[in-house]
Order: sequence, then structure tokens, then C-alpha cells
Amino acid sequence: MDARLKHLLQGERVARFWDAMSRNYPLHLYSKPVKTAVEGKFPGDGKFFLVGENVDPATLAVIGAALEQLLGYEHEAADLTRELSLVYEEITLLYRLSTAFAGKLQIEQIQQSAVAEIADTLEVAKVSVLMLTEDGQGLVLSAGLGVENGRLGAVRFRRGKGLAWRVVDSGQSLIANDLAQYADFDQGRQPDRSLLLVPLATKTGLAGVLAVSNPRYGREFTSKDEKLLATIAQQMGSVWENASLYKEAREQFLHTVEALSAAIDAKDPYTHGHSRRVTDFSMAIAEEMALPPEDLELIRISSLLHDIGKLGVSENILRKPDRLTGEEFAEIKKHPVIGAEIMSHVKKLSRFVPGMIDHHERFGGGGYPDGRQGEQISLAGRIIAVADTFDAITSDRPYHPDRKGRPDEVALAEIQRCRGSHFDPVVVDAFQRAYDRGRIKQNPAIQAPA
Amino acid sequence: MDARLKHLLQGERVARFWDAMSRNYPLHLYSKPVKTAVEGKFPGDGKFFLVGENVDPATLAVIGAALEQLLGYEHEAADLTRELSLVYEEITLLYRLSTAFAGKLQIEQIQQSAVAEIADTLEVAKVSVLMLTEDGQGLVLSAGLGVENGRLGAVRFRRGKGLAWRVVDSGQSLIANDLAQYADFDQGRQPDRSLLLVPLATKTGLAGVLAVSNPRYGREFTSKDEKLLATIAQQMGSVWENASLYKEAREQFLHTVEALSAAIDAKDPYTHGHSRRVTDFSMAIAEEMALPPEDLELIRISSLLHDIGKLGVSENILRKPDRLTGEEFAEIKKHPVIGAEIMSHVKKLSRFVPGMIDHHERFGGGGYPDGRQGEQISLAGRIIAVADTFDAITSDRPYHPDRKGRPDEVALAEIQRCRGSHFDPVVVDAFQRAYDRGRIKQNPAIQAPA
Repeated sequence: MDARLKHLLQGERVARFWDAMSRNYPLHLYSKPVKTAVEGKFPGDGKFFLVGENVDPATLAVIGAALEQLLGYEHEAADLTRELSLVYEEITLLYRLSTAFAGKLQIEQIQQSAVAEIADTLEVAKVSVLMLTEDGQGLVLSAGLGVENGRLGAVRFRRGKGLAWRVVDSGQSLIANDLAQYADFDQGRQPDRSLLLVPLATKTGLAGVLAVSNPRYGREFTSKDEKLLATIAQQMGSVWENASLYKEAREQFLHTVEALSAAIDAKDPYTHGHSRRVTDFSMAIAEEMALPPEDLELIRISSLLHDIGKLGVSENILRKPDRLTGEEFAEIKKHPVIGAEIMSHVKKLSRFVPGMIDHHERFGGGGYPDGRQGEQISLAGRIIAVADTFDAITSDRPYHPDRKGRPDEVALAEIQRCRGSHFDPVVVDAFQRAYDRGRIKQNPAIQAPA
Repeated sequence: MDARLKHLLQGERVARFWDAMSRNYPLHLYSKPVKTAVEGKFPGDGKFFLVGENVDPATLAVIGAALEQLLGYEHEAADLTRELSLVYEEITLLYRLSTAFAGKLQIEQIQQSAVAEIADTLEVAKVSVLMLTEDGQGLVLSAGLGVENGRLGAVRFRRGKGLAWRVVDSGQSLIANDLAQYADFDQGRQPDRSLLLVPLATKTGLAGVLAVSNPRYGREFTSKDEKLLATIAQQMGSVWENASLYKEAREQFLHTVEALSAAIDAKDPYTHGHSRRVTDFSMAIAEEMALPPEDLELIRISSLLHDIGKLGVSENILRKPDRLTGEEFAEIKKHPVIGAEIMSHVKKLSRFVPGMIDHHERFGGGGYPDGRQGEQISLAGRIIAVADTFDAITSDRPYHPDRKGRPDEVALAEIQRCRGSHFDPVVVDAFQRAYDRGRIKQNPAIQAPA
């Protein structure tokens, strides 16, 4: 029996029937016409020719007719099973995506999750998320896997260049298993073997293209790959708007903190723009310390608001050109406590209180308001203390025309002198490294060091 | 032939075989044993007995054997088709949910979308979303369809009362088609015919229970209903965390605006708590005008920040106990412009500028800073103008010990007197209605009207 016919008889019920018949009547199946054979069809335009030994022709005709219908059923069941397994694959992917995207509201997180799911699901070596630029004239590589380093964020294809633009223009997916066909395709330095491109649509319109290339095991892309990638694109698109709404709310929050910070600085023109600068310096230190993103945000907002308590100190004291009396200085020293008081009423800002209230504490003790020391002082407070001191020494004081900012070197020397007593040595070292790398700048070499 | 056997032969290929055979040999099928019959099985433990006229027994045996396997295939194909249609229903639901939940980041919106999808998908008359209270001791009806009015937001079941607690305690779904069985079930005033309950889990744990009852067309709940409702619960759970993150970001924003507003009020103790009160009054007017939620938010934030420009006016002027000089008054009148200046630097706050800059404009013209009139003045500005005036007349002035707040009636009379000249008549009327309904209170009948 030829291999193809043998394969046809492997289905469970057709095999059971064949075996039962074969026990009584030696039967032979041929794919070419044979004399005395009963002819039957099997799905896919094939024919079989059934010959029996010692079978009367009527019975052989019944076996042939039964075989034809059994093979038909077998074929349909295989089709249904295949379809079912594809749909299950899709449904599993949908559940996996809803879990993967849950709790991810930042566009970068969504892209990263999508890239990982695409690589897993489609078994490809290369994934690119190409986003349309705001002017609609370029496609930026905004996330990827197996793509050349250093290309993220850069325009990868100008309008019209590369196959991805066909997808943008048509809104249709594209499978290119034979890239040689596409003369207009810029293959770049790492030529792809084959490509599958799917549009990425959001509620507000086409946002970009998902591109995968070089499927593993040397296989070609099929319509099944296209279906699965389109499913991922569809789910990505539907979480996209949430990410935009979240981004809007986050930006409103951060911008309002900046407005509040500007209001603080406006109240004390003695140190115009002070909060802004202290925030820049604190962030340079925190980044040098390689703190995680949550801590960076904590330090950014604590720094922007560290002097919020000055809103409760009289302008007449803050702006006084002359030396302060002991009583006036005591009033100024209340500002961290007043700040904590203001912020304690604002539930969602309470986690920024420690950095703010601690910024005049000293690492070796003896600071205010609580005289805490070492690690009792919040990390944000220890960082802001150094940044604050650097700005206090180096910035101009508009209400003191004769009091210009001193050179950076003076502040650096003072901070190093107080390493361990006033300041946390770890923070001072990070500050020094950040300064040496040019991340902190105020008055470098404007005046010669004293 | 009995109906059950006839039905078995309705499958396409088995019918084709039966018809072909019947043309040559008159065949009869029985469900009870018959002499001379060939016996065969069909799926589901049934048996058939095949009798042929003028057929030799060997051929009849072949027909019987073929029939048995063909019926088996027919049965399997029907199963697969049924499974496939269920899976397609689930997949369609998943896509529909991802579209329904897209762009919805507020818990109320998510609940509403879910309730609508549940009612559609399960064809039920009643849907309840029951959420665990923070102390875990109650289930609150937080959204629903076909439930009694006025119950939303109230604790519906205390711990242990009602079937929903079984679901909370076990984490398992529950189908109760015969509610009489459940003695512990509080049926309430509108007894349900049958119930299906599914746990609602989020990333951080069990959040509540989805309950549906009274399926249409008198049918009972099946495991298919349970599967579909569980799918909806699963998708709801996965968007839940996003809603929480969004809520957090929104609250941080609103609380920071409140902190900024408190900072404004702290600067001008002349009108302590003024921004807070003006915001309450503005909101009462806006709600009376039945403005949409986006406008309510715009008016809330514009009101909280309406005096932000005072941050740029000297404390010595703001706190001056004596009458202001012309020059000093000119300085104070700059505050809307200074406010617009501050806020124009904060991109995400720019949409709150019009309400803030306009709050000293007059409806009939002649206000400041721009002397605009009528609808040229933003609605937020027209509302804040009335709220601001009411507070200015009725609040105490701490820096003027002899200047106590005047009775509400004085302010009401003044506002009515300026209806159309100073103030928008529509806003004045809404203000008066809100006042009459007790939504605005300051010094009612503390002093007799002058």
C-alpha cells in the first residue's frame, strides 16, 4: 500500500473498520486503477481502488462505499481538531496578554510585554515595534528584540522607505517570505530572511507597525502567524489609550508639583529657582547611586517640595537683606516642620514628607528639627542635604547684590570637609562622581577658587 | 424507525451511506433486539439492530460495522463543532471585552461596561457587582442592572449572610438553579428564580463577586454560563489594577492641587480658607446647573487655583490691616494676570487658566484684567465670580478684628443686585437655587440682616 493511502487509514475509526474487514477478507488498496477494483474517492480529489480476495463484488462495493464516507469523516474531524487547536492557541494568547498587560500603564512597559509575547508566540529571532512620528513622516524603532543596539528611539524608516510603509498606507498586514521580490525594501546591514508586518491601530487611528522576522527552524510565515500577531496588535492597541490617559494624569500631577515648587521659589526670591536646581542635583546624585525608578520619583518630588514649609514663613524674614536676629533664624528653622504639617494634610503626598522634613538633619547628628543621625535620616533627606548645600554656596542671592554665587570648587571642598559629619559619605561620593562626570554644573571655573 | 435512530442518521455522510445502501437492500433499523439482526453500538451506550431484506448475512454485517463507525464519527464531529462554537463564543467575548474596557480607567466605567456585557452575553434580567468592603466584613452592591434602586453603594450582605459569601470563602463559582435548597439564602423582597455567582479576583486578591439571576426564557444556568461569566470576571480583574493605578495618579494630582490651593490661602490669611470655600460654592452652583463631569472637574480645579496669582503679590500688601493706597490696590489687581503667567508655564494646567484669569471680569463689562463681557468670559470664571463675592462678604477677616463676616442675606442681596451687571443671570439663578436647597452655607441667621 502506498504511504499516502496508509496514512489515510490511520484515523481511529477508519482503522478499526479496515482491520475488522481485513480479518475476514484480505483487502488491498491501490492509488492507480486496477482491474476488478471498487473505485472510491477520498477528500482532496484523491482516488482509491479497493481489491478483495474471496469477496463477492456486492460486499466489496459496500466496503468501498463505507470507506469513502469514513475517510470523509476522518478528514473533517482532523480539520475541526486543527481549527480548534488554533482557536485554543488564540484564546490562550488572549488570556496571557490580558495578564501580561494588567497593571502596565506605561507605554514602555506595554511595548516590552508585547515584544516578549511576540517572540514566545511566533518563535521569531527578531521583533520590532515601529511607531509613527507625530508628523507622520517617519517610523521610529521604539522597542525591539534582536535588533541592533543603539537604534531604539531613532527614526528607522522615512516615509516611503521600507516595506512597513506599505502596511501604514494600506492598513493591511503583509507576509514577505521571499524578500528578493521587494526591490524597494532597504535590507540594512543584517538582512532578514523573511518578514511579517501587521498594523498597530489604536482607538484614535494607526499608531505604527509590528514587524517580526526570521522565524526559527527555517520555517516560513503563514496566515496563522499573521492571525496571532494581529491578535497581539489588537490587544496592544486596546491598552494603548489607557496608557495615554494614565500618562496625562501622571503629567498633570508632576506639573502641579512643579507649579507648587515654583510657588515656593517665588516666595523666597533670595534663592530664585533654588528648588528646581536642588532637584536637578539630587537627581544626578540618585542616578549616580543607580537607585530604582520608584526611588528616583520619590527623590524628584521630595526635592521639588523640600522647602514647601517656607510658604509658612514670613516674607519679611525670607527677604530680609540684613543679618537675621536669633529669633528670626529660629523662625526660618521651623520650615521643615511647617512643610511636614502642610503635607500631612495631603494624604497622597505623605510619602514625600520624610525627604522634606529631613533635609536639615546631619549624618553625624546635631541637625534640625529632630537631631536624628545616620540611617535614621531618610535617604531622600540625605541626598537633598548635599544638593541643597551645593546650591546655597554656589547660587547668587538677588536680594544681596554683593553676594554672588561662589565657585563650585568652594562648595565641593565644603561638602568633602563635612563628609561623615554633616553628610552621608555614600551620598557625598556619588555627588563627587556625578560632578566629575559633568552631571552637576553651576559656576565651574567662572572665578578662580579662593 | 424510532425517532432517536432516525435522528442518528441525519449526519451528512452517514445519511449518504444509508441512502446508497437502502437503494440496493431494503434495510430496517430497530432499537430493540430483533431476530436475524446485526447488532451495533452507537455513542452514548445505545444499540441498534439492523435487518436487511434479501441481503446475505456477510454483507449485512459489513453494513452494520460501517454504520457503527460512521455513527461514531458523526457523534465526534458534532462534539467538536459544539466545542468550537463555544470557544468562538468565548473568543468573541474576549475581543468584545477588550474593546469595551479600552479607554476605561475608572472603576465605575469598568463596572458599567461589565454589567452591560454580562446582561448581553448571559441573557439575564438581573446583574449585581458585589464588592468586599475594606474590612472584609461586608459585600457592597456597587453596580447592577435590574436591581432595586437606591441600593447602590450600600452593604447588601454582611459576612456570612447570603450565598455570595460561600463564593468569597471558597473562591469557587456557584450555580444555584434550585434556590429552595439553600436555607441560608436571604431572598429579599424580589425573590430570584436561580443564581449564578462567580468570584471576582484581582492581582492583589479576591475583590468581590459577580452575581446574575433569572435567566431569560425560563432556562437554567449551565456550566457554559459559568464559563462565560468567569471570563468576564477574569478580564474585569485584569483591568482593575490599571484603574487603581489611574485612581492613584488622579488623586495625587487632585491632592497636589489642594496643597497648592492651601499654600495660596496660607499666603493671604486675610481670607483664611477662602479657596476651599469658593471651590465648595462653585461646585454647588455647577451641580445646580447640571454641568457634565468634565466641566465639574474644570471648575473644581479652576476654583482651587483661582487666587494662585496672589503668590506673586507681596504679603505686606495682602496682610495690610489699613486701607490700601491706590498703588497697592493696583498691585493686588494684577493677581489674575500673575496667576495666568504662573500657570502658562505648567502645560498640563493651562486648561484651568481661563476660569482663573476671568474671575474678576464682570458680565456687563468693566471688570479686570481684560474688560471682557458676557459669554466672552469663561463659564468657570462667571461661576467663580459669584462664589468669590459670596465668600468675600460673608467670611471673617482675621487681620481685621473688627471686620466679622456679614450675614448670608447681605451677600445674597448684593449678588441679586448685581445680577446681569456684575454677574451672569444664569449663574446667579443657579446660585440662588443651590442656596435655597441648603447646598451653600456660611452665616445663615447668625446675625439678623442689617
